[in-house]
Amino acid sequence: MTATIRILGIDPGLRRTGWGVVDSTGNALRFVAAGTVKSDDKAELAARLCQIHDGLALVLSDLTPGEAAVEQTFVNKDAVATLKLGQARGVAMLVPALAGLSVAEYAPNAIKKAVVGAGHAEKQQIHLMVKVLLPKANFDSEHAADALAVAICHAHHRQSHARALHVA
Amino acid sequence: MTATIRILGIDPGLRRTGWGVVDSTGNALRFVAAGTVKSDDKAELAARLCQIHDGLALVLSDLTPGEAAVEQTFVNKDAVATLKLGQARGVAMLVPALAGLSVAEYAPNAIKKAVVGAGHAEKQQIHLMVKVLLPKANFDSEHAADALAVAICHAHHRQSHARALHVA
Repeated sequence: MTATIRILGIDPGLRRTGWGVVDSTGNALRFVAAGTVKSDDKAELAARLCQIHDGLALVLSDLTPGEAAVEQTFVNKDAVATLKLGQARGVAMLVPALAGLSVAEYAPNAIKKAVVGAGHAEKQQIHLMVKVLLPKANFDSEHAADALAVAICHAHHRQSHARALHVA
Repeated sequence: MTATIRILGIDPGLRRTGWGVVDSTGNALRFVAAGTVKSDDKAELAARLCQIHDGLALVLSDLTPGEAAVEQTFVNKDAVATLKLGQARGVAMLVPALAGLSVAEYAPNAIKKAVVGAGHAEKQQIHLMVKVLLPKANFDSEHAADALAVAICHAHHRQSHARALHVA
Protein backbone atom coordinates (compact mmCIF):
# COMPACT_ATOMS: atom_id res chain seq x y z
CA MET A 1 0.00 0.00 0.00
CA THR A 2 1.30 3.42 -0.94
CA ALA A 3 0.89 6.24 1.54
CA THR A 4 -0.92 9.41 0.53
CA ILE A 5 0.84 12.69 1.05
CA ARG A 6 -1.06 15.94 0.98
CA ILE A 7 0.87 18.76 -0.69
CA LEU A 8 0.33 22.51 -0.40
CA GLY A 9 1.61 24.58 -3.33
CA ILE A 10 1.90 28.34 -2.90
CA ASP A 11 2.29 31.14 -5.44
CA PRO A 12 3.14 34.17 -3.29
CA GLY A 13 2.33 37.77 -4.07
CA LEU A 14 1.61 40.84 -1.95
CA ARG A 15 -1.80 41.49 -3.56
CA ARG A 16 -2.76 37.90 -4.35
CA THR A 17 -1.27 34.71 -2.96
CA GLY A 18 -2.48 31.56 -4.69
CA TRP A 19 -2.65 28.23 -2.90
CA GLY A 20 -3.50 24.75 -4.09
CA VAL A 21 -3.71 21.43 -2.28
CA VAL A 22 -3.38 17.99 -3.89
CA ASP A 23 -3.21 14.44 -2.54
CA SER A 24 -0.43 12.35 -4.05
CA THR A 25 -0.66 8.54 -3.82
CA GLY A 26 2.01 6.73 -5.81
CA ASN A 27 1.61 8.10 -9.34
CA ALA A 28 -1.94 9.25 -8.72
CA LEU A 29 -2.86 12.86 -8.03
CA ARG A 30 -6.11 14.10 -6.61
CA PHE A 31 -7.33 17.71 -6.41
CA VAL A 32 -8.32 18.74 -2.89
CA ALA A 33 -8.82 22.51 -2.98
CA ALA A 34 -7.39 25.77 -4.29
CA GLY A 35 -7.94 29.43 -3.68
CA THR A 36 -6.51 32.92 -3.44
CA VAL A 37 -5.62 34.96 -0.38
CA LYS A 38 -6.16 38.64 -1.13
CA SER A 39 -4.61 41.49 0.78
CA ASP A 40 -6.19 44.92 1.02
CA ASP A 41 -3.94 47.26 -0.99
CA LYS A 42 -5.23 50.25 0.95
CA ALA A 43 -4.00 48.75 4.24
CA GLU A 44 -0.52 49.24 5.69
CA LEU A 45 2.17 46.77 4.74
CA ALA A 46 2.27 45.05 8.14
CA ALA A 47 -1.51 44.55 8.06
CA ARG A 48 -1.32 43.10 4.54
CA LEU A 49 1.36 40.64 5.64
CA CYS A 50 -0.96 39.62 8.50
CA GLN A 51 -3.76 39.01 5.98
CA ILE A 52 -1.49 36.71 3.95
CA HIS A 53 -0.44 34.94 7.15
CA ASP A 54 -4.00 34.49 8.39
CA GLY A 55 -5.28 33.24 5.03
CA LEU A 56 -2.57 30.62 4.67
CA ALA A 57 -2.77 29.63 8.36
CA LEU A 58 -6.47 28.89 7.79
CA VAL A 59 -5.66 26.65 4.80
CA LEU A 60 -3.10 24.78 6.92
CA SER A 61 -5.46 24.24 9.83
CA ASP A 62 -8.42 23.30 7.59
CA LEU A 63 -6.65 20.97 5.17
CA THR A 64 -3.59 19.83 7.20
CA PRO A 65 -1.13 19.30 4.33
CA GLY A 66 2.03 17.35 5.14
CA GLU A 67 4.50 19.12 2.83
CA ALA A 68 4.68 22.48 1.09
CA ALA A 69 6.30 23.85 -2.06
CA VAL A 70 6.87 27.33 -3.49
CA GLU A 71 8.11 28.55 -6.85
CA GLN A 72 11.62 29.97 -6.83
CA THR A 73 11.13 33.61 -7.52
CA PHE A 74 11.97 35.02 -10.88
CA VAL A 75 14.00 38.04 -9.87
CA ASN A 76 12.47 41.04 -11.52
CA LYS A 77 14.35 44.01 -12.92
CA ASP A 78 11.95 46.21 -11.01
CA ALA A 79 13.55 46.36 -7.56
CA VAL A 80 10.46 47.77 -5.82
CA ALA A 81 8.35 44.88 -7.17
CA THR A 82 11.05 42.41 -6.12
CA LEU A 83 11.04 43.78 -2.58
CA LYS A 84 7.23 43.57 -2.38
CA LEU A 85 7.23 40.02 -3.67
CA GLY A 86 10.06 39.12 -1.28
CA GLN A 87 8.07 40.34 1.71
CA ALA A 88 5.01 38.32 0.71
CA ARG A 89 7.17 35.31 -0.10
CA GLY A 90 8.88 35.45 3.31
CA VAL A 91 5.49 35.26 5.02
CA ALA A 92 4.18 32.60 2.61
CA MET A 93 7.15 30.34 3.35
CA LEU A 94 7.09 31.06 7.07
CA VAL A 95 3.51 29.92 7.67
CA PRO A 96 3.94 26.25 6.63
CA ALA A 97 7.44 26.15 8.17
CA LEU A 98 6.04 27.29 11.53
CA ALA A 99 3.52 24.44 11.27
CA GLY A 100 6.45 22.02 10.96
CA LEU A 101 6.18 21.38 7.20
CA SER A 102 9.17 21.17 4.89
CA VAL A 103 8.98 23.88 2.23
CA ALA A 104 10.56 22.88 -1.08
CA GLU A 105 11.48 25.42 -3.75
CA TYR A 106 11.33 24.77 -7.49
CA ALA A 107 12.64 26.81 -10.40
CA PRO A 108 9.95 28.00 -12.86
CA ASN A 109 11.40 25.73 -15.57
CA ALA A 110 11.21 22.66 -13.31
CA ILE A 111 7.54 23.40 -12.67
CA LYS A 112 6.80 23.83 -16.40
CA LYS A 113 8.63 20.59 -17.15
CA ALA A 114 6.72 18.66 -14.48
CA VAL A 115 3.34 19.96 -15.61
CA VAL A 116 3.64 20.43 -19.39
CA GLY A 117 6.68 18.27 -20.15
CA ALA A 118 8.73 21.19 -21.50
CA GLY A 119 10.71 23.86 -19.69
CA HIS A 120 9.47 26.76 -21.83
CA ALA A 121 5.69 26.47 -21.74
CA GLU A 122 3.34 29.43 -21.76
CA LYS A 123 1.16 30.26 -18.76
CA GLN A 124 -1.96 29.16 -20.67
CA GLN A 125 -0.49 25.73 -21.43
CA ILE A 126 0.32 25.27 -17.76
CA HIS A 127 -3.21 26.11 -16.68
CA LEU A 128 -4.62 23.76 -19.33
CA MET A 129 -2.39 20.92 -18.16
CA VAL A 130 -3.32 21.54 -14.52
CA LYS A 131 -6.92 20.90 -15.62
CA VAL A 132 -5.83 17.72 -17.45
CA LEU A 133 -3.78 16.38 -14.54
CA LEU A 134 -6.41 17.39 -11.97
CA PRO A 135 -9.77 17.05 -13.81
CA LYS A 136 -11.74 18.05 -10.72
CA ALA A 137 -9.67 21.16 -10.12
CA ASN A 138 -11.37 24.48 -9.98
CA PHE A 139 -9.41 27.61 -9.28
CA ASP A 140 -10.54 31.17 -8.86
CA SER A 141 -7.38 32.85 -10.17
CA GLU A 142 -4.18 32.35 -12.14
CA HIS A 143 -2.32 32.40 -8.83
CA ALA A 144 -4.33 29.42 -7.59
CA ALA A 145 -3.60 27.56 -10.86
CA ASP A 146 0.12 28.37 -10.50
CA ALA A 147 0.01 27.13 -6.91
CA LEU A 148 -1.51 23.81 -8.10
CA ALA A 149 1.28 23.55 -10.70
CA VAL A 150 3.89 23.90 -7.92
CA ALA A 151 2.11 21.21 -5.89
CA ILE A 152 2.07 18.87 -8.94
CA CYS A 153 5.79 19.54 -9.50
CA HIS A 154 6.54 18.64 -5.89
CA ALA A 155 4.49 15.43 -6.17
CA HIS A 156 6.52 14.38 -9.25
CA HIS A 157 9.85 15.20 -7.67
CA ARG A 158 9.24 13.42 -4.39
CA GLN A 159 7.90 10.45 -6.39
CA SER A 160 10.98 10.14 -8.61
CA HIS A 161 13.17 10.68 -5.56
CA ALA A 162 11.40 7.79 -3.79
CA ARG A 163 11.81 5.61 -6.91
CA ALA A 164 15.53 6.40 -7.05
CA LEU A 165 15.90 5.43 -3.41
CA HIS A 166 14.00 2.20 -4.06
CA VAL A 167 16.28 1.26 -6.98
CA ALA A 168 19.40 2.07 -4.98
CA MET B 1 1.85 62.61 34.08
CA THR B 2 3.15 61.42 30.75
CA ALA B 3 2.65 57.82 29.77
CA THR B 4 5.60 55.65 28.87
CA ILE B 5 5.53 53.83 25.59
CA ARG B 6 7.90 50.96 24.89
CA ILE B 7 9.16 50.92 21.31
CA LEU B 8 10.71 48.05 19.36
CA GLY B 9 12.97 49.05 16.47
CA ILE B 10 13.94 46.39 13.93
CA ASP B 11 16.70 46.32 11.31
CA PRO B 12 15.81 43.27 9.21
CA GLY B 13 18.25 41.06 7.33
CA LEU B 14 18.26 37.40 6.35
CA ARG B 15 21.59 36.66 8.10
CA ARG B 16 21.29 39.17 10.94
CA THR B 17 18.21 40.98 12.17
CA GLY B 18 18.95 43.70 14.71
CA TRP B 19 16.42 44.70 17.34
CA GLY B 20 16.41 47.43 19.96
CA VAL B 21 13.89 48.39 22.63
CA VAL B 22 13.57 51.84 24.25
CA ASP B 23 11.12 53.38 26.69
CA SER B 24 9.86 56.82 25.66
CA THR B 25 8.34 59.10 28.31
CA GLY B 26 7.64 62.63 27.06
CA ASN B 27 11.00 63.81 25.74
CA ALA B 28 12.96 61.26 27.76
CA LEU B 29 14.34 58.07 26.27
CA ARG B 30 15.58 55.06 28.18
CA PHE B 31 17.49 52.09 26.80
CA VAL B 32 15.83 48.76 27.61
CA ALA B 33 17.65 46.12 25.58
CA ALA B 34 19.09 45.36 22.15
CA GLY B 35 20.37 42.34 20.33
CA THR B 36 20.76 40.43 17.10
CA VAL B 37 18.79 37.46 15.79
CA LYS B 38 21.08 35.30 13.67
CA SER B 39 19.93 32.77 11.10
CA ASP B 40 21.96 29.75 10.11
CA ASP B 41 23.12 30.36 6.54
CA LYS B 42 23.56 26.62 5.99
CA ALA B 43 19.87 26.00 6.74
CA GLU B 44 17.08 26.11 4.16
CA LEU B 45 15.32 29.39 3.57
CA ALA B 46 12.08 28.40 5.33
CA ALA B 47 14.05 27.30 8.41
CA ARG B 48 15.97 30.59 8.45
CA LEU B 49 12.72 32.56 8.28
CA CYS B 50 11.50 30.51 11.26
CA GLN B 51 14.66 31.44 13.18
CA ILE B 52 14.01 35.15 12.54
CA HIS B 53 10.37 34.68 13.58
CA ASP B 54 11.26 32.80 16.76
CA GLY B 55 13.97 35.28 17.80
CA LEU B 56 11.70 38.30 17.38
CA ALA B 57 8.71 36.52 18.95
CA LEU B 58 10.89 35.93 22.05
CA VAL B 59 11.77 39.64 22.23
CA LEU B 60 8.07 40.52 22.00
CA SER B 61 7.01 38.10 24.71
CA ASP B 62 9.93 39.00 27.02
CA LEU B 63 9.83 42.79 26.67
CA THR B 64 6.21 43.43 25.59
CA PRO B 65 6.76 46.58 23.49
CA GLY B 66 3.65 48.59 22.59
CA GLU B 67 4.70 49.84 19.15
CA ALA B 68 7.19 48.81 16.50
CA ALA B 69 9.17 50.54 13.75
CA VAL B 70 11.26 49.37 10.78
CA GLU B 71 13.52 51.20 8.39
CA GLN B 72 12.12 51.61 4.87
CA THR B 73 14.32 49.45 2.76
CA PHE B 74 16.87 50.99 0.50
CA VAL B 75 16.18 49.13 -2.70
CA ASN B 76 19.41 47.61 -3.85
CA LYS B 77 20.55 47.26 -7.44
CA ASP B 78 21.32 43.64 -6.64
CA ALA B 79 17.96 41.96 -7.20
CA VAL B 80 18.93 38.72 -5.43
CA ALA B 81 19.97 40.68 -2.32
CA THR B 82 16.74 42.70 -2.51
CA LEU B 83 14.68 39.51 -2.62
CA LYS B 84 16.53 38.04 0.39
CA LEU B 85 16.11 41.22 2.35
CA GLY B 86 12.44 41.38 1.36
CA GLN B 87 11.80 37.90 2.68
CA ALA B 88 13.45 38.68 6.02
CA ARG B 89 11.67 42.03 6.18
CA GLY B 90 8.28 40.42 5.56
CA VAL B 91 8.80 38.14 8.55
CA ALA B 92 10.28 40.94 10.71
CA MET B 93 7.21 43.11 10.12
CA LEU B 94 4.77 40.23 10.49
CA VAL B 95 5.87 39.21 14.00
CA PRO B 96 4.97 42.48 15.80
CA ALA B 97 1.87 42.92 13.61
CA LEU B 98 0.59 39.47 14.63
CA ALA B 99 1.07 40.55 18.25
CA GLY B 100 -1.26 43.48 17.56
CA LEU B 101 1.42 46.21 17.38
CA SER B 102 1.38 49.00 14.81
CA VAL B 103 4.52 48.83 12.66
CA ALA B 104 5.71 52.22 11.42
CA GLU B 105 8.17 52.60 8.55
CA TYR B 106 10.76 55.38 8.29
CA ALA B 107 12.97 56.39 5.38
CA PRO B 108 16.73 56.14 6.09
CA ASN B 109 17.03 59.94 5.90
CA ALA B 110 14.28 60.46 8.48
CA ILE B 111 16.13 58.12 10.85
CA LYS B 112 19.44 59.94 10.32
CA LYS B 113 17.75 63.28 10.89
CA ALA B 114 16.08 62.11 14.10
CA VAL B 115 19.28 60.65 15.52
CA VAL B 116 22.08 62.88 14.21
CA GLY B 117 20.12 65.98 13.17
CA ALA B 118 21.14 65.70 9.51
CA GLY B 119 19.75 63.57 6.71
CA HIS B 120 23.12 62.52 5.33
CA ALA B 121 25.02 61.19 8.31
CA GLU B 122 27.51 58.32 8.15
CA LYS B 123 26.81 54.99 9.86
CA GLN B 124 29.53 55.73 12.46
CA GLN B 125 27.94 59.07 13.41
CA ILE B 126 24.60 57.34 13.89
CA HIS B 127 26.07 54.71 16.19
CA LEU B 128 27.91 57.42 18.18
CA MET B 129 24.69 59.42 18.60
CA VAL B 130 22.77 56.31 19.65
CA LYS B 131 25.31 56.03 22.50
CA VAL B 132 24.85 59.74 23.34
CA LEU B 133 21.04 59.56 23.31
CA LEU B 134 20.97 56.22 25.14
CA PRO B 135 24.05 56.30 27.44
CA LYS B 136 23.27 52.91 28.92
CA ALA B 137 22.87 51.26 25.53
CA ASN B 138 25.01 48.31 24.68
CA PHE B 139 24.62 46.56 21.37
CA ASP B 140 26.31 43.48 20.00
CA SER B 141 26.18 44.43 16.33
CA GLU B 142 25.68 47.29 13.88
CA HIS B 143 22.23 45.86 13.18
CA ALA B 144 21.27 46.26 16.84
CA ALA B 145 22.55 49.87 16.78
CA ASP B 146 20.56 50.55 13.62
CA ALA B 147 17.48 49.05 15.25
CA LEU B 148 17.90 51.40 18.23
CA ALA B 149 18.19 54.31 15.78
CA VAL B 150 14.84 53.33 14.23
CA ALA B 151 13.28 53.12 17.70
CA ILE B 152 14.64 56.60 18.57
CA CYS B 153 13.25 57.97 15.29
CA HIS B 154 9.82 56.55 16.07
CA ALA B 155 9.92 58.05 19.58
CA HIS B 156 10.67 61.52 18.10
CA HIS B 157 7.99 61.26 15.46
CA ARG B 158 5.20 60.11 17.77
CA GLN B 159 6.28 62.83 20.23
CA SER B 160 6.10 65.66 17.68
CA HIS B 161 2.85 64.20 16.38
CA ALA B 162 1.41 64.31 19.92
CA ARG B 163 2.64 67.89 20.33
CA ALA B 164 1.00 68.92 17.06
CA LEU B 165 -2.28 67.40 18.18
CA HIS B 166 -1.99 69.23 21.52
CA VAL B 167 -1.47 72.61 19.80
CA ALA B 168 -4.34 72.01 17.41
